[in-house]
Amino acid sequence: MSIEGRSDAGAGRRLKLGMVGGGQGAFIGAVHRLAARMDDQYEFVAGALSSTPEKSIASGNELGLAADRNYPDYATMAAAEARRPDGIDAVAIVTPNHMHFPVAKAFLNVGINVICDKPLTTTRVEAHELQQLVQTKGLVFAVTYNYSGYPMVRQAREMIAKGDLGEIRLVQGEYPQDWLTTPLESTGQKQADWRTDPARSGAGGCVGDIGTHTYQLATFVSGLELDQLLAELTSFVPGRKLDDDAHVMLRFKGGAKGSIWASQVAPGNENGLKLRVYGTKGGLEWTQADPNYLWFTPYGEPKRLVTRGGAGAGASAGRVTRVPPGHPEGYLEGFANIYTEAARAIRARRDGSMVDHEVMFPTVHDGVKGVVFVEACVRSSSAGGIWIKV
Amino acid sequence: MSIEGRSDAGAGRRLKLGMVGGGQGAFIGAVHRLAARMDDQYEFVAGALSSTPEKSIASGNELGLAADRNYPDYATMAAAEARRPDGIDAVAIVTPNHMHFPVAKAFLNVGINVICDKPLTTTRVEAHELQQLVQTKGLVFAVTYNYSGYPMVRQAREMIAKGDLGEIRLVQGEYPQDWLTTPLESTGQKQADWRTDPARSGAGGCVGDIGTHTYQLATFVSGLELDQLLAELTSFVPGRKLDDDAHVMLRFKGGAKGSIWASQVAPGNENGLKLRVYGTKGGLEWTQADPNYLWFTPYGEPKRLVTRGGAGAGASAGRVTRVPPGHPEGYLEGFANIYTEAARAIRARRDGSMVDHEVMFPTVHDGVKGVVFVEACVRSSSAGGIWIKV
Amino acid sequence: MSIEGRSDAGAGRRLKLGMVGGGQGAFIGAVHRLAARMDDQYEFVAGALSSTPEKSIASGNELGLAADRNYPDYATMAAAEARRPDGIDAVAIVTPNHMHFPVAKAFLNVGINVICDKPLTTTRVEAHELQQLVQTKGLVFAVTYNYSGYPMVRQAREMIAKGDLGEIRLVQGEYPQDWLTTPLESTGQKQADWRTDPARSGAGGCVGDIGTHTYQLATFVSGLELDQLLAELTSFVPGRKLDDDAHVMLRFKGGAKGSIWASQVAPGNENGLKLRVYGTKGGLEWTQADPNYLWFTPYGEPKRLVTRGGAGAGASAGRVTRVPPGHPEGYLEGFANIYTEAARAIRARRDGSMVDHEVMFPTVHDGVKGVVFVEACVRSSSAGGIWIKV
Amino acid sequence: MSIEGRSDAGAGRRLKLGMVGGGQGAFIGAVHRLAARMDDQYEFVAGALSSTPEKSIASGNELGLAADRNYPDYATMAAAEARRPDGIDAVAIVTPNHMHFPVAKAFLNVGINVICDKPLTTTRVEAHELQQLVQTKGLVFAVTYNYSGYPMVRQAREMIAKGDLGEIRLVQGEYPQDWLTTPLESTGQKQADWRTDPARSGAGGCVGDIGTHTYQLATFVSGLELDQLLAELTSFVPGRKLDDDAHVMLRFKGGAKGSIWASQVAPGNENGLKLRVYGTKGGLEWTQADPNYLWFTPYGEPKRLVTRGGAGAGASAGRVTRVPPGHPEGYLEGFANIYTEAARAIRARRDGSMVDHEVMFPTVHDGVKGVVFVEACVRSSSAGGIWIKV
Repeated sequence: MSIEGRSDAGAGRRLKLGMVGGGQGAFIGAVHRLAARMDDQYEFVAGALSSTPEKSIASGNELGLAADRNYPDYATMAAAEARRPDGIDAVAIVTPNHMHFPVAKAFLNVGINVICDKPLTTTRVEAHELQQLVQTKGLVFAVTYNYSGYPMVRQAREMIAKGDLGEIRLVQGEYPQDWLTTPLESTGQKQADWRTDPARSGAGGCVGDIGTHTYQLATFVSGLELDQLLAELTSFVPGRKLDDDAHVMLRFKGGAKGSIWASQVAPGNENGLKLRVYGTKGGLEWTQADPNYLWFTPYGEPKRLVTRGGAGAGASAGRVTRVPPGHPEGYLEGFANIYTEAARAIRARRDGSMVDHEVMFPTVHDGVKGVVFVEACVRSSSAGGIWIKV
Repeated sequence: MSIEGRSDAGAGRRLKLGMVGGGQGAFIGAVHRLAARMDDQYEFVAGALSSTPEKSIASGNELGLAADRNYPDYATMAAAEARRPDGIDAVAIVTPNHMHFPVAKAFLNVGINVICDKPLTTTRVEAHELQQLVQTKGLVFAVTYNYSGYPMVRQAREMIAKGDLGEIRLVQGEYPQDWLTTPLESTGQKQADWRTDPARSGAGGCVGDIGTHTYQLATFVSGLELDQLLAELTSFVPGRKLDDDAHVMLRFKGGAKGSIWASQVAPGNENGLKLRVYGTKGGLEWTQADPNYLWFTPYGEPKRLVTRGGAGAGASAGRVTRVPPGHPEGYLEGFANIYTEAARAIRARRDGSMVDHEVMFPTVHDGVKGVVFVEACVRSSSAGGIWIKV
Repeated sequence: MSIEGRSDAGAGRRLKLGMVGGGQGAFIGAVHRLAARMDDQYEFVAGALSSTPEKSIASGNELGLAADRNYPDYATMAAAEARRPDGIDAVAIVTPNHMHFPVAKAFLNVGINVICDKPLTTTRVEAHELQQLVQTKGLVFAVTYNYSGYPMVRQAREMIAKGDLGEIRLVQGEYPQDWLTTPLESTGQKQADWRTDPARSGAGGCVGDIGTHTYQLATFVSGLELDQLLAELTSFVPGRKLDDDAHVMLRFKGGAKGSIWASQVAPGNENGLKLRVYGTKGGLEWTQADPNYLWFTPYGEPKRLVTRGGAGAGASAGRVTRVPPGHPEGYLEGFANIYTEAARAIRARRDGSMVDHEVMFPTVHDGVKGVVFVEACVRSSSAGGIWIKV
Repeated sequence: MSIEGRSDAGAGRRLKLGMVGGGQGAFIGAVHRLAARMDDQYEFVAGALSSTPEKSIASGNELGLAADRNYPDYATMAAAEARRPDGIDAVAIVTPNHMHFPVAKAFLNVGINVICDKPLTTTRVEAHELQQLVQTKGLVFAVTYNYSGYPMVRQAREMIAKGDLGEIRLVQGEYPQDWLTTPLESTGQKQADWRTDPARSGAGGCVGDIGTHTYQLATFVSGLELDQLLAELTSFVPGRKLDDDAHVMLRFKGGAKGSIWASQVAPGNENGLKLRVYGTKGGLEWTQADPNYLWFTPYGEPKRLVTRGGAGAGASAGRVTRVPPGHPEGYLEGFANIYTEAARAIRARRDGSMVDHEVMFPTVHDGVKGVVFVEACVRSSSAGGIWIKV
């Protein structure tokens, strides 16, 4: 019931964080800043918060950035921060998808660690180029597949790795939402606008936005590698340019099967991300909206409800747990875990020390896998729904 | 809060029911007899309860059948009952799948109404022959797709028919179980034995046993007609001859999409049948294990929990409801509704009266559709997972 | 997964059942008849179904009673049935509360077994007189505290008796309803009319109707005996003559504590009966509306969900289970279990054999305890809310 | 779906926060610091983190406090901070209960705003003295009844204030835990040690620790004022000096009734705080462990599930909401809302501006009410369980 090893960093010990995107009217920028702040590991000191220089500066003022670190654009910021002795330790990239690539490249090129939103890029070629660059530069690159930061997701992963489920046979993922049930993009709503626009989102709509989260979660937890997929992408809302619903069948290496259903047109579903994994010895079930619970169902025994911080919760969940069982943690805490884990890697790199093997966050490799998944889905669906080797 | 129009029939007014199959050691026979008895509409008076004459007679004795109506085999029974002035009004067929066809044919041929378990037959040709025969003879033929008897399933159907969900876009069905996680058939367990045997079950294992239930429920509730499907059937347990897991993608006429996942190897799932339907205006969700609840989610409003017998429950649920809200009804009550609805049709036919248009039970046509579905799934999967027009 | 030992009785082997009360417009009469029929243990053959002779006869005709066993009143019925060689084996008493006593007495006096609704009587004196009479006559007397018929209630009792919870410290019962939120009795609704009328219900309103159910369930499951209670009864609806809400504090012999809250004015609660029991080693939680689940929470381990028919369910639940886990049983099945258990006792008495020690149903002793509880609650509350020794 | 009006404060604009208590091994100190940090409204700059000077200094070093603001004791700290031109704007008091009074008094006396843990003090006299002092000084004094910070708790309060439930009749609160099921205090566990010690906790054990939370929540949400109570406090664990279980009956002014059950010996309950309120027109139900949901049950309509950030959520919830519906917020966010609301009051006081009427946090008055409640419970129980006027 204590919060082991989670002491505040304290002033002067915090990492310096910059941000690109996330200015006025954005949703995810505020989430990233709060997540960075939660465990007192980062101090937000610099930004190029909008693609429009004026809005960028105005947003920075609003957030209290010092004038000399409130930049009109990301290129200027990368150059200036690289030159400063007290330059940022990492940049958070929270722009629409199409900008992830150029921004990440700019900061990697000047030697700055990156924390980037998903999907990594809008094309496979770009994703591979970033992967290459990260390896060359030896920098830390985190991709905010934030659901893998939830304690009970880590618990699930640990249990499967330990063999509690036996050999995995089935992985069922789903992520229904309802916010695009109507043509919201035609009202000018900012989120709907860019997320349904191929020029800014890439070729995947729903599948790129939340299908990729589901896929990352499924593979992170199960430890399986995808072999083939078959996708049926649909745009239900008339006039919509990208898919708002995705059914995907999965064949994993080694013979496991599964499916992913992601939808933005399923009324009554807010963020219904759910993962179920079944093996020869038992099953697991986790739901994002109620993230402090993990159902564990050993075959032939009563179902068990493992709770975050409670009896049965193991080490990998414990190290990302802040409060006692029965006091719920949520989305922001899970998100913050990615930031705090990345901070450990960034400090280790800075200090030339080894990263603790328990540090776990999605990297550029996971980012690449996500882009490959989206591209394969689009390809399969365009071909009429055929099996594709990934 | 009252039980409208559900008076007991009383002695002398009950329909006479015979049964084929359902003897010692069978599970579903006792369920059928209890379901028939629940609303006092049937009296169980005759049987050929096993494929082995000795076991047949012994089972009938145990159940108190009169000696002259306790038959060694179904053919003798059909002939004898047809000749009696007090012969049975209907026969319940509860044998393994491969016997449905010959038994049903025998009773239809002598003019006796049939209540038959699902799947209707093991081949499409047989199914069509029965359909033809029913039409020629003008008899009542019910197929016990029992889940369509649950009040809240009828509520769901009524709401969709009324347009509460708008135009339907998505139909998500699933039916996970876990009882075949291990090679149970190799232990001699009777249920597992015949259900995994192609000679007695037909070409579909899991997909024929519970996939077909899910499909019937999905189409019954949504009112949609299937256009194409793509299936991935798997036998996970080594040595098993039939599929124990089925993933099916669905394309409905008119553009709706959907999927069905049925499994017998998903530990922790007992009978996890669940249906979700989404339209332009709202969604519905129903779960068999908690059948007295129906989630209704009108888009842009708080989710609503409609309860059997409670506020918001309509006429079609009301007429198959026995007890007040908050007092749960279950599987047997839903099953009994099929029997009681069939009784209404049988009486109407006997009396030459019209069947009330509200009487609703799955007929031979639904039986045929189920067989077509199973065959298409097997064909699609055998071809490597391709789209099949049904 | 099989239905052990639950064979139908078959014609000619059924017990003969009569009924007093339960005619047109009644709710509970139909429930009793269905419960009696479910396991094929009873045949309903005689009745005096209303306090009005004409309505009585009309109701009997509607239910198909033979003319010579369709009685105008209970006294005539008791006398006539006692004389018949094929007279009834038992009578079900389903009248308003104030009639339980005279009717039960009449049938006991002529040597007929009784199955009586709760509360047993409207006064303690009457209750004790019936108890005395039952002992003198050596007859079977069941009181339909039907919730004790649910399989998972028996499971809970078995686990506590075995010591799975250690020494019991706390028993929390509640039974909120909402059907009397408004002055329904002033609309002439039949159920509300007599249940809020002291002349027909007795001195307890809500506490007598559902508080007593909760108390019986609490003591049946926990095995504890009440020592003292303190009650706060309230009539929230203006003009209502009996309590529609009851808060009761409990001190059990041996030091355990607890409380019961029963209400008929709690909007959103249909039949929210719930029991929680906690001991030194673990806890249990059961909810009537979802009766197939039992939470078992051994201290220091993950919570476990025990399901009817599933892993972890023991013998006492198994013998009153009809269908496999995941196929829900409900209110009528639980009710039927009381009837079927009583049938076993009635047959044993008739045959002069021992009653199997596993046979379990509430008897006249439980009926007396319920009446004592209600009287003590009324007394405590009338005195301003003081502790009363029971 | 956006995060309105929740911009970060930014460096230089944050309030300066000190802390007394909350050093090494403490649980709640870290929670307070995190809550203060979440919305970027406070900077933690000074502390006297333990009652032992050496531990105090060590703890401050660990947390990165500057040497000149890392104090050996609270008296030194109060004096020094009052003198500094950049002295703290507020002190958070997170010591065991018995120290709340002297520490709060010391800081109030030097003109520093206070954020104090609950219960306010261990005696009524002290509580009233603090209340007096706050009024004299005109300072901001927040008491961290953190559950009133949850968005859906505010939603519930708003709905009741608007009349959505009609006139309130019933308030049912409960807070079961299980962590003191065994004599944990005898193992030296720090939390158990002081919380079961009258010298540090005051006269109430369970009732003071969590009963008071439940009471505050019940009155905050319902808007009712308590008139009388009757309490039954029990120490179930042998040797325990304070109650570990509390049953309390409530009579509110105006005629509403209710009850509170708080327990620390109910296995399977982590932090099971739950509130149900019923009125003439409807009901509400909220559970702390699943805080993003609020059941609203208008009488005679289907139950509705209102979700944080979703349709049906009103203004008072909206202003303390950070992320979109379906992305859960938890305990820390609710706690942070108290801090952020207090920050608004502190800034307004500093700037001489009016506090927005929507700002809502528990004050010294709520603290006094809580102490009065605990004392009355202890008095009632000691007298054998009698009604006490509060």
